[in-house]
Amino acid sequence: MLSESSVKLGTSRSVIRELFEFGKQRAAIVGAENVYDFSIGNPSVAPPAQVNETAIDILKNADPVAIHGYTSANGDILVRQQLAQSVNNRFSTSYTADNFYIATGAAGALCSAIKGLCCPNDEFVVFAPYFPEYKVFIEAMGGRMALVPADIDTFQINFDAFVSTLNENTKAVIINSPNNPSGAVYSKETIERLAAILTEKSNEYGHPIYLISDEPYREIAYGVEIPWVPDYYGCTIVCYSYSKSLSLPGERVGYVLVPDSCNEQEPVYAAVTGAARALGYVNAPSLFQRVCAQCSDMTADIGIYERNRNILLEGLRSFGYHCVEPGGTFYLFPRTLEADDVAFCERAKQFDLLIVPGVGFGCPGHTRISYCVPTERIERALPVFKKLAESYK
Amino acid sequence: MLSESSVKLGTSRSVIRELFEFGKQRAAIVGAENVYDFSIGNPSVAPPAQVNETAIDILKNADPVAIHGYTSANGDILVRQQLAQSVNNRFSTSYTADNFYIATGAAGALCSAIKGLCCPNDEFVVFAPYFPEYKVFIEAMGGRMALVPADIDTFQINFDAFVSTLNENTKAVIINSPNNPSGAVYSKETIERLAAILTEKSNEYGHPIYLISDEPYREIAYGVEIPWVPDYYGCTIVCYSYSKSLSLPGERVGYVLVPDSCNEQEPVYAAVTGAARALGYVNAPSLFQRVCAQCSDMTADIGIYERNRNILLEGLRSFGYHCVEPGGTFYLFPRTLEADDVAFCERAKQFDLLIVPGVGFGCPGHTRISYCVPTERIERALPVFKKLAESYK
Repeated sequence: MLSESSVKLGTSRSVIRELFEFGKQRAAIVGAENVYDFSIGNPSVAPPAQVNETAIDILKNADPVAIHGYTSANGDILVRQQLAQSVNNRFSTSYTADNFYIATGAAGALCSAIKGLCCPNDEFVVFAPYFPEYKVFIEAMGGRMALVPADIDTFQINFDAFVSTLNENTKAVIINSPNNPSGAVYSKETIERLAAILTEKSNEYGHPIYLISDEPYREIAYGVEIPWVPDYYGCTIVCYSYSKSLSLPGERVGYVLVPDSCNEQEPVYAAVTGAARALGYVNAPSLFQRVCAQCSDMTADIGIYERNRNILLEGLRSFGYHCVEPGGTFYLFPRTLEADDVAFCERAKQFDLLIVPGVGFGCPGHTRISYCVPTERIERALPVFKKLAESYK
Repeated sequence: MLSESSVKLGTSRSVIRELFEFGKQRAAIVGAENVYDFSIGNPSVAPPAQVNETAIDILKNADPVAIHGYTSANGDILVRQQLAQSVNNRFSTSYTADNFYIATGAAGALCSAIKGLCCPNDEFVVFAPYFPEYKVFIEAMGGRMALVPADIDTFQINFDAFVSTLNENTKAVIINSPNNPSGAVYSKETIERLAAILTEKSNEYGHPIYLISDEPYREIAYGVEIPWVPDYYGCTIVCYSYSKSLSLPGERVGYVLVPDSCNEQEPVYAAVTGAARALGYVNAPSLFQRVCAQCSDMTADIGIYERNRNILLEGLRSFGYHCVEPGGTFYLFPRTLEADDVAFCERAKQFDLLIVPGVGFGCPGHTRISYCVPTERIERALPVFKKLAESYK
């Protein structure tokens, strides 16, 4: 007599959350320093100091009724202007406030974009490995997820499988580069080829296939160029969040950008904002809209993540693990040392090494290691990863 | 090829928003002091000083990674404990953190509760006059709204009409007391009679009818007792928000309370949190979760609203307007001086008096006057209300 899917979502703890809880229990028994928790993708680096300084400055000096009041449902107009300026400066674009909807984090952005697009029978294409909540969001918004298996040698797109997934019900394709969980960054060539196929298929089907580019990890990349997707495919909707770049995941501020090049820009923008309204998103949190706008050109110190990646990647490879080099994010996604990734992660757990099976990301035979942790945890964990590898010899 | 309902919601500006925009245009022409805008329910009183002080204290002294990080999806555990304590102190209850889900404002709370309960063919009963977004939320969550016409003499419940609305598909009844737009506070007798009918009908149908008590205006009442609804009907889900009590509508913090007395408390609580997850509500904004918890026993200076109500109510009545005395909120809902409330509000607009027709609230023949405005605006507007009344003589 209740919504079954809701009860199930609210009851079933995710594998990641279970590992995290297990880690806390083990820490109480063996000591926190002997538990190597790499389960959760919660930024471990503080926000830039300017974030709190900006917030305090606004709290001290601005009109409290205005600051804490409702903003325009689409986001404060000044905030949208500032974000347009910031994006224009970086990508030589010419967006205006009217291209931006300020969203309640990336999840709010995605749900609003998906719901705004979704008609009955619509399919949304997702590439493995993928962020598991995509399936939850797509299905809750009335769509069906079509999963394209991974290209495990590169974690770029498996184009043959992709093409055979497309059909007349394909409404949109979702990409996530830099990618959670693989860390892969889609190359210019990948985006070009993707755009060519989408253009061809849109013409063939007689309706646009939208490209939703989910980019919360855009700023967390290590010397790799990240193409600006709308430059390659006009009919792109960009979803962004300040959760990772400014280390503000709890504050829930992001945006949906609907460029003028997007097919039916005005109705699409209206659909996104209307969907957000129907989902109960009145406006993104008002103080942090302003804070994020004022800090939009900064990032947390991602150098820490890069150092973590280098130490971990080099260590793992020296112990015999196979791992595609990630261009960004704070995840490694090595192959497991036995085909059954769940069994592998269970064995790792015996060593108090908490890593997540790839199967939940649509990519069995792999494991996700979140390295947004103190570097010294990685240094302590390396001998344990070594022992784990040796246990397979 | 887009979600029609979303495009429509995103395109059609609400009547309220149109009035507000008209007011801004008129102000540019005739001067802001000559436009009497009573259209929008945006708190006009500053938050208590402790709100900003608390926020600044947390920003200065707490660990920024923890403060801005993800909280538990249900809300920070300390926050939920503090809210349980605060509610228990006021209502002599014995709730725990496990009864509270911290929501992204009242809208997020309502959507999560409705979606969590909603099965195919379910109906949600709403009493006129009602907050128009109820219909948007209910329909977006897959339900159907069943509207009970108003008792315009008291703005309590029209029980005959209510009973004939109930049927086997009734999943829940939504009440909003103190009420937007009437300002009415449901009496103890009203709640008792409502509870008796719901108990009887739940037995008759063989399944519980849930009562969703939407209480964002709970603290804005003028010497009137507001019954604690779960004391009268166990199967109640309380939706609350700090938007009005602390004047923080933009910050989006509220809660869903599922008491143990609620039928299937654990599955219902799970359904609410699962629904929130599916809608993309990762967690309520993290800093303001803490701020609201620490300030949960305070309110903004609602004495200003009471003064506004008294001046306006006395003035309107002296000019011949009929108005049920409101026990709370910052709205008056007098009868219009002609049956067609849209025509009446259009005539008011000729006087630069911006008030909202009742028809949008499911109650034609009335108009909503939001008096969360500076008192001097009310004083300046009284002669204009008088002129408007005289124009009907």
